[in-house]
Amino acid sequence: MKVQQKHDVKVTDLFWSRYIDLVKEKVIPYQWEALNDRVEGAAPSHAIKNFKIAAGEETGEFHGFVFQDSDLAKWIEAVAYILKERPDPELEATCDDVIALVKRAQQPDGYLNTYYTIKEPNKRWTNLRDNHELYVGGHFIEAAVAYFEATGKRQLLDVMCRFADYVDSVFGYGEDQLRGYDGHQEIELALLKLYRVTKEERYLRLSQFFIDIRGEEPHFFDQEAVNRGEKPHRWYRNSYSYSQSHKPVREQEVAAGHSVRAVYMYTAMADLANELDDDGLKKTCETLWKNVTEKQMYITAGIGSAEFGESFTSDYDLPNDLAYTETCASIGLVFWAKKMLELEPKGSYADVIERAIYNGTISGIELDGTKFFYVNPLEVWPNQAAHRHDYKHVKSERQPWFGCACCPPNIARMIASIGQYVYSVKDQIGFVHLYIGSQTTLELDEQKVRIQQESEFPWHGSVSFKIDPEHSFSGTLAFRIPGWAHTFNMSINGEELSTQLVDGYAYVTRTWEKADELKLSIPMDVNILHPHPKLRANAGKVALQRGPVVYCLEEVDNSAGLSSLAIKDDQVIEHSFDQSTLGGVVVLKGKARRTENLTNALYVSNNELVTKEVDFKAIPYYAWANRGIGEMAVWNRKA
Amino acid sequence: MKVQQKHDVKVTDLFWSRYIDLVKEKVIPYQWEALNDRVEGAAPSHAIKNFKIAAGEETGEFHGFVFQDSDLAKWIEAVAYILKERPDPELEATCDDVIALVKRAQQPDGYLNTYYTIKEPNKRWTNLRDNHELYVGGHFIEAAVAYFEATGKRQLLDVMCRFADYVDSVFGYGEDQLRGYDGHQEIELALLKLYRVTKEERYLRLSQFFIDIRGEEPHFFDQEAVNRGEKPHRWYRNSYSYSQSHKPVREQEVAAGHSVRAVYMYTAMADLANELDDDGLKKTCETLWKNVTEKQMYITAGIGSAEFGESFTSDYDLPNDLAYTETCASIGLVFWAKKMLELEPKGSYADVIERAIYNGTISGIELDGTKFFYVNPLEVWPNQAAHRHDYKHVKSERQPWFGCACCPPNIARMIASIGQYVYSVKDQIGFVHLYIGSQTTLELDEQKVRIQQESEFPWHGSVSFKIDPEHSFSGTLAFRIPGWAHTFNMSINGEELSTQLVDGYAYVTRTWEKADELKLSIPMDVNILHPHPKLRANAGKVALQRGPVVYCLEEVDNSAGLSSLAIKDDQVIEHSFDQSTLGGVVVLKGKARRTENLTNALYVSNNELVTKEVDFKAIPYYAWANRGIGEMAVWNRKA
Repeated sequence: MKVQQKHDVKVTDLFWSRYIDLVKEKVIPYQWEALNDRVEGAAPSHAIKNFKIAAGEETGEFHGFVFQDSDLAKWIEAVAYILKERPDPELEATCDDVIALVKRAQQPDGYLNTYYTIKEPNKRWTNLRDNHELYVGGHFIEAAVAYFEATGKRQLLDVMCRFADYVDSVFGYGEDQLRGYDGHQEIELALLKLYRVTKEERYLRLSQFFIDIRGEEPHFFDQEAVNRGEKPHRWYRNSYSYSQSHKPVREQEVAAGHSVRAVYMYTAMADLANELDDDGLKKTCETLWKNVTEKQMYITAGIGSAEFGESFTSDYDLPNDLAYTETCASIGLVFWAKKMLELEPKGSYADVIERAIYNGTISGIELDGTKFFYVNPLEVWPNQAAHRHDYKHVKSERQPWFGCACCPPNIARMIASIGQYVYSVKDQIGFVHLYIGSQTTLELDEQKVRIQQESEFPWHGSVSFKIDPEHSFSGTLAFRIPGWAHTFNMSINGEELSTQLVDGYAYVTRTWEKADELKLSIPMDVNILHPHPKLRANAGKVALQRGPVVYCLEEVDNSAGLSSLAIKDDQVIEHSFDQSTLGGVVVLKGKARRTENLTNALYVSNNELVTKEVDFKAIPYYAWANRGIGEMAVWNRKA
Repeated sequence: MKVQQKHDVKVTDLFWSRYIDLVKEKVIPYQWEALNDRVEGAAPSHAIKNFKIAAGEETGEFHGFVFQDSDLAKWIEAVAYILKERPDPELEATCDDVIALVKRAQQPDGYLNTYYTIKEPNKRWTNLRDNHELYVGGHFIEAAVAYFEATGKRQLLDVMCRFADYVDSVFGYGEDQLRGYDGHQEIELALLKLYRVTKEERYLRLSQFFIDIRGEEPHFFDQEAVNRGEKPHRWYRNSYSYSQSHKPVREQEVAAGHSVRAVYMYTAMADLANELDDDGLKKTCETLWKNVTEKQMYITAGIGSAEFGESFTSDYDLPNDLAYTETCASIGLVFWAKKMLELEPKGSYADVIERAIYNGTISGIELDGTKFFYVNPLEVWPNQAAHRHDYKHVKSERQPWFGCACCPPNIARMIASIGQYVYSVKDQIGFVHLYIGSQTTLELDEQKVRIQQESEFPWHGSVSFKIDPEHSFSGTLAFRIPGWAHTFNMSINGEELSTQLVDGYAYVTRTWEKADELKLSIPMDVNILHPHPKLRANAGKVALQRGPVVYCLEEVDNSAGLSSLAIKDDQVIEHSFDQSTLGGVVVLKGKARRTENLTNALYVSNNELVTKEVDFKAIPYYAWANRGIGEMAVWNRKA
């Protein structure tokens, strides 16, 4: 087994601590109430009740989606991460109780799924395409691993090992086994986590099986449909690309279909490629990565540009206003990028993590933690969203909760585990991927090296590290220089350092002494970004980014009619931290030209229009829609 | 009765004669084969067969849409117009035969509808909201009037008078009568045509009734749903605006709902306002006209920007690529504009007719007359249309026939009757609205004035008229000066004429002599048009128009990646007639800047892009998609 070095990280960052507090104080309690059907006005989740019924402790019918259980799993996982950051015996006791309930709902053979247990006990594994049994199991495995790592408690881990053992008996190449896989990938990545914690190689092999068998002919989803007495039914554009099973996984070169399923699968694939030293699979991952990040990713790290199938579409098809860009998909992209980074330490992977965590993921959560976006458009015209049926998925304000409540718990678990993305160790080199104030201890050449990071990201590019090895030792630390940086400075103990920049990391090799102080300064200029010429939706437009933060214009700051504004692209745009705006953010200010009409005609000659110079103000994209409903645009015309 | 002076017009125009020939030689024969289920590969229409079954001459089931009959009606109407332009005894005989069949399918009480006659004989008038009985009847009335006017034959006219008499007995304010109206307006405008031909005032009153009762509470569609034992069901955004019955017609200020229904209704309203000297209704028409043409109309005169409900959406919501802009809707806009023009001779109404007939209507028909667009987008990216479900209505090439085949016969009848839009007489003034080569005789002050027009429109702005009164007489002719014209020159018998320009018409009052020759020259410059600042989809873009013709860029002339082009808006764009392109059109040529990438990155700084000057070529929009599948854009970025 390849060791993915475990190192606890305690986040002390100003920016992220606020979010972690929010998850602990608002999101987790709110979601707990929701799971228990105690939120007034919200559609009841029924998730806990389903478990009680399945455990034989209450009577009633199953309610909710077939994957309703997974909401509880993601809640437990988020609680686990929070307990590491913010220990809380009461929350832990609540979680222990609900885990005990989950255990009681498990069937004697290890099966765990309240939908089938309550509703169709004889129909297990008859509709993998649609019914998410392994998906739900995967989320409970992730929760079990996280809870074990946070608390040392094995109860849920044991439950999920029994589940995994049972799954391993049902699925496989054996004659009496199903050569099948889930319509929604998730168990593949979860089994790898379980393998790492338990060192049980069968879980590794089972994950590999699910990846290898996917998309093989004869198609499993066709076969099981026939077994159900149904006609095979490829609902998504007459292809199985919706579930990435349109062809064997290793032959896939273009990201297609449901974007969350896709990136969950790519995460497992990258992890497997690493674990198995599988160069072919690694190449597939790299090809898919290139496709996504060079042709199908929004500047916010949003992915999946179509509402239909919540899916990828085609290269360079990235409409700003029709975008789907589900919060969960960006979160999944972070998972995948982390695994790519473990495969190979390239700054471009961490760049995407950074782009996602400061933009297209946290845009999904209201600043006060109580409302959520499922869909994260890059441009909103409330009038259009209200009047056009083809924009019905676009909301101009965050919603309290969703029937299909995947995004809120997903953003909670990402925020609560943000520390996991900051550092890694590979080939005895310690990597710093993100500039997030934190403490950790890395093991390098069998030495424990304590690292304390202080950072002013994302508002200022000054970072300082206290490097504290047990004993002085020779070794290498590598610090990521973000793709957006034009330059950087590094010093150790006050002395400037010249470093080698390889694949986006500044490698510092030296004899590290106790209490070394390394300072890194990366000037954060405002970058005026242009789209690739094939990116049709953004032609003639520019986006503003400062450091890792992508900006947008909102109606509240710039008045209505954002499309009549054009930003001069040769100006120096001012930035200033404004404590009074959106809880304290850096805002950008500059000059724009606004076009105004002299007649009411729709189509006029140039002399029937005037333009005048106006000031514009931009705010971080993630914080949009926190001041009421209005127009918003990330990409604005250049003058 | 207000006399709408009838004057036969014989079209001798180069541009339109080709289209009329096409309708006669290709469209009408093809549609006849289609109506008779003899087109291989096309879904059978079953329209003729339905009539035979209803007449008791064949057995079988009804097939097709509930409004399938109307395809035959529109065919007969188109044939009628064609018979005036191009007499053809064989075609007339065929038409007589099918009219006799229609007569045999009429029920003893006058009812005519094969769906109900065959399928639900006891359910007549139980679902006006959805089932189009009056709509179908309206189309047969239009056909009957046209056929009578073309041939003098009364057979179909008598059939439809019986139908109208029967409808008049069923609907009305009487106690045993239905206070209802059709979900799809059409009979309202048709009854007015029938009234003019028959002078039967009941038809005028019945049309007025349908307009007056529409949208009144309690809502008729609610009541009939309850009578059917159904819950009232407002499928379109939970409102009856889909069928313009969300409020009384006279209270409507914004065009809403299904765009074809809307403009058919507005046509009847304008005609009624004129007939009844109803100033309130006239004001409503003017308000709606302003809303449509100043806020909801594409530059091609396309209307209805959403596929959902084939409908209007909201002010300034005119996306180019998602556009619905049904061919039939632009045709209906022409009908409406004609009635507005009859109400009041304003050039702006005729401008819209001209904009529609040279752009958004004939774009619906392939240059060879064999294929049709239902949807007429102003921008197409074939890759997007193929991959995005929300663009599923957008086709990159015209289709041979449609299941719902409303547009092909509609474009046929508009082309075949194009002569009706050229001239009119109001208050003894003869108006020339369009510059289409033609001959007619107007009656002015009881004098017959023969007019022979020769025109090079839309390619050249030279028009000449031979004005030939029976005797010399003093009177006024008014010639429209199009909104796109910057200047014009007029001469009579070689002598320059200075005229008064009122509401877009140059009024020429004089003593007209036999064989007067009037020449009009309107220079056709290339106009670079800009959008109203609120027209978000076109911000930063320009469109090219020369004379009445709107241009577009196609991939075949400009290579792929049209969005990477930017047109300089300060250049003089060249125009030249090119006989070898698209059957002979004026093409435009100019300079553009093309942006090219130096890296594969999606988001880059300015110095990672280069631009270079390239030539561009634009062709008339109506002729797009006649040279294979490729990108197309009417609005292109300005440099």
